[in-house]
Amino acid sequence: MTPTLQLRHAGGVLHITLNRPAVRNAMSLAMVTELREALATAETDGHSRAVVLRGAGGHFCSGGDIQDMARARMGAPVDGQDPIAAVSAAFGHLCAAYASTPLALVAVLEGTVMGGGFGLACVADVVIASDSVAFRLPETSLGVVPAQIAPFLVERLGPSEARRLAVCGARLDAAQALAIRLVHEVHPSDRLDAALQRVLDDILRCAPGAVATTKALLRRARREPPEALIDDAAALFSLAVQGPEGIEGTTAYLQKRAPRWVRD
Amino acid sequence: MTPTLQLRHAGGVLHITLNRPAVRNAMSLAMVTELREALATAETDGHSRAVVLRGAGGHFCSGGDIQDMARARMGAPVDGQDPIAAVSAAFGHLCAAYASTPLALVAVLEGTVMGGGFGLACVADVVIASDSVAFRLPETSLGVVPAQIAPFLVERLGPSEARRLAVCGARLDAAQALAIRLVHEVHPSDRLDAALQRVLDDILRCAPGAVATTKALLRRARREPPEALIDDAAALFSLAVQGPEGIEGTTAYLQKRAPRWVRD
Amino acid sequence: MTPTLQLRHAGGVLHITLNRPAVRNAMSLAMVTELREALATAETDGHSRAVVLRGAGGHFCSGGDIQDMARARMGAPVDGQDPIAAVSAAFGHLCAAYASTPLALVAVLEGTVMGGGFGLACVADVVIASDSVAFRLPETSLGVVPAQIAPFLVERLGPSEARRLAVCGARLDAAQALAIRLVHEVHPSDRLDAALQRVLDDILRCAPGAVATTKALLRRARREPPEALIDDAAALFSLAVQGPEGIEGTTAYLQKRAPRWVRD
Repeated sequence: MTPTLQLRHAGGVLHITLNRPAVRNAMSLAMVTELREALATAETDGHSRAVVLRGAGGHFCSGGDIQDMARARMGAPVDGQDPIAAVSAAFGHLCAAYASTPLALVAVLEGTVMGGGFGLACVADVVIASDSVAFRLPETSLGVVPAQIAPFLVERLGPSEARRLAVCGARLDAAQALAIRLVHEVHPSDRLDAALQRVLDDILRCAPGAVATTKALLRRARREPPEALIDDAAALFSLAVQGPEGIEGTTAYLQKRAPRWVRD
Repeated sequence: MTPTLQLRHAGGVLHITLNRPAVRNAMSLAMVTELREALATAETDGHSRAVVLRGAGGHFCSGGDIQDMARARMGAPVDGQDPIAAVSAAFGHLCAAYASTPLALVAVLEGTVMGGGFGLACVADVVIASDSVAFRLPETSLGVVPAQIAPFLVERLGPSEARRLAVCGARLDAAQALAIRLVHEVHPSDRLDAALQRVLDDILRCAPGAVATTKALLRRARREPPEALIDDAAALFSLAVQGPEGIEGTTAYLQKRAPRWVRD
Repeated sequence: MTPTLQLRHAGGVLHITLNRPAVRNAMSLAMVTELREALATAETDGHSRAVVLRGAGGHFCSGGDIQDMARARMGAPVDGQDPIAAVSAAFGHLCAAYASTPLALVAVLEGTVMGGGFGLACVADVVIASDSVAFRLPETSLGVVPAQIAPFLVERLGPSEARRLAVCGARLDAAQALAIRLVHEVHPSDRLDAALQRVLDDILRCAPGAVATTKALLRRARREPPEALIDDAAALFSLAVQGPEGIEGTTAYLQKRAPRWVRD
């Protein structure tokens, strides 16, 4: 437990629950800091392979915390940066850290998913949603800008769909979110846990080092032309084949057993 | 009215109707020029927040005008450029201007949407279509190239779907266009106006400056890595929060009233 | 016939059938070499306009050949590169060659589509699948990396969907593949040939030079901003209009006949 998060570790998976249910898990500065620390710990603890993000009390996250923003308005400059920009940048670094984590990242969404919560949904590798989920980008209707999540809207939805949502204030229900692949599965609330377990089973069948390498390569593939990646991809492939995971994977395959990284 | 367009201004919205119904609103050089002028005026008149593009007479646009092209074939070089390239480049600049406008851009599509009309559909932020709409990219079947619209096919549909359409000559009905998100909503013709009004209501609830900033940021997000945008995004967020729209938006929210930019 | 492929040429189309049915057409090094040679010949023979890829014996392709990989493990360095990396790079160059071919490329998928076969499916312009098709990315569950196909997963599916598949090991049936546009059409097996013929008819109505120019332009459009392409696009358009295909296309249109490149 941290002041704003419930943390639970089970079977190689860090379950993070945003835990400010009284404000639909609005993302305070404290929560941003704790979320970054939780991820940094999971990335280096040697036994976490996946992170699951969800919200307490039937909602995922209602976005940035208005109290924090009000305080920042009154505040003094932080490291020479104005305090509002500093709050925004802290959230931007959080999104970037989760978007580039080598761990598998799953989000389980229920109820309200707004603003910054919408951004977190966009950086997850797999998103499972309750059929009661309600997405919203309220920023432009409040005279402000979905600034830090813009890159992840584009990454998830493509530039065109991202623009449509931003221009219209993006109210989406579960079916609409599924149609644009903002979420990958929709289930009744009482079946979310079973669906999550199936996704985690799939993830945990994959070797963690191989997943990390593949995620990093896919990120490069978005920016660099295919020809430029051939030699690096070949070297990474060779390294994987001859490394401990490749050897264990091949041996297990020939011995018709599950490799060691698969939990019973 | 201009020679090729009907222009109507109402409630912060410039309605542009392509108005050459005898040739299914084929895009003549005159129309290209008038479309650019109409947009430039709307961008600077201080009271336009959205632009709606549609066609007169039950069709959106049948593409480039064959007469103009025939004339260009006979013509003399324009500014050192050959006259056919000059016609093409003029259309390219039109697409680029609409694709990068800070205003919200809605297209309402009925009947024929071909060639250059297909391109205009791709640059709109929101596309509403009649169930009778018929898309076509006839260029390659005529021995020519959908050259200026290529960037916007990729932006709207992704590189892979764009390639499929270009290779096959792209005949699409409303359901197929919806499946690939070339259009966002499909309605019977007699319900298009009501659907348009709902989209405009959504758009006009959003602050115009915030929409402009968001559109610009999303464009950058397509090309630049997320980490590179964090500081600029933070500065834009802070500017918006402390600017007139952010102050009015927050105040209205606290006072439980609509902000001033929302029309009754 | 080559040792691993059936090649058939008919009506401007090179039909390539992966022909190692005993191993579900696993892609041996010999097959990689023969596939590259078949494409290089088609690109230069002056009469091939489209290439169709399919598999013999009810499966498309089960991915890389395990025997080859085992041999590479034992092998000596190839051109200073380690032999496993060399095998991987050879496959990467194959994918890049098919992804950038000026010819139209169609894949017809049945049964198993795994690993490298999944990659080939991603580079095709049009993909028709049997309703019995079963996709899989088994690499990470074997401790290795879908390294050479990463760029083409991103190109076909977008960065976000590509990441989801890699992290979860990607088991997809026909309906799921259609939903993410990994395939464009799904049919019962006994109707695949008729569906292929319709796609080829569409492709062969398009002028081959115009298709090649458009494919090249769409590739550039993925990486370069729209404004940077306007002048080149205009020059290519003008060249096409005044070239033999543009003249034949316009003449045929005015004479209300099919252009010469359309087969009866």
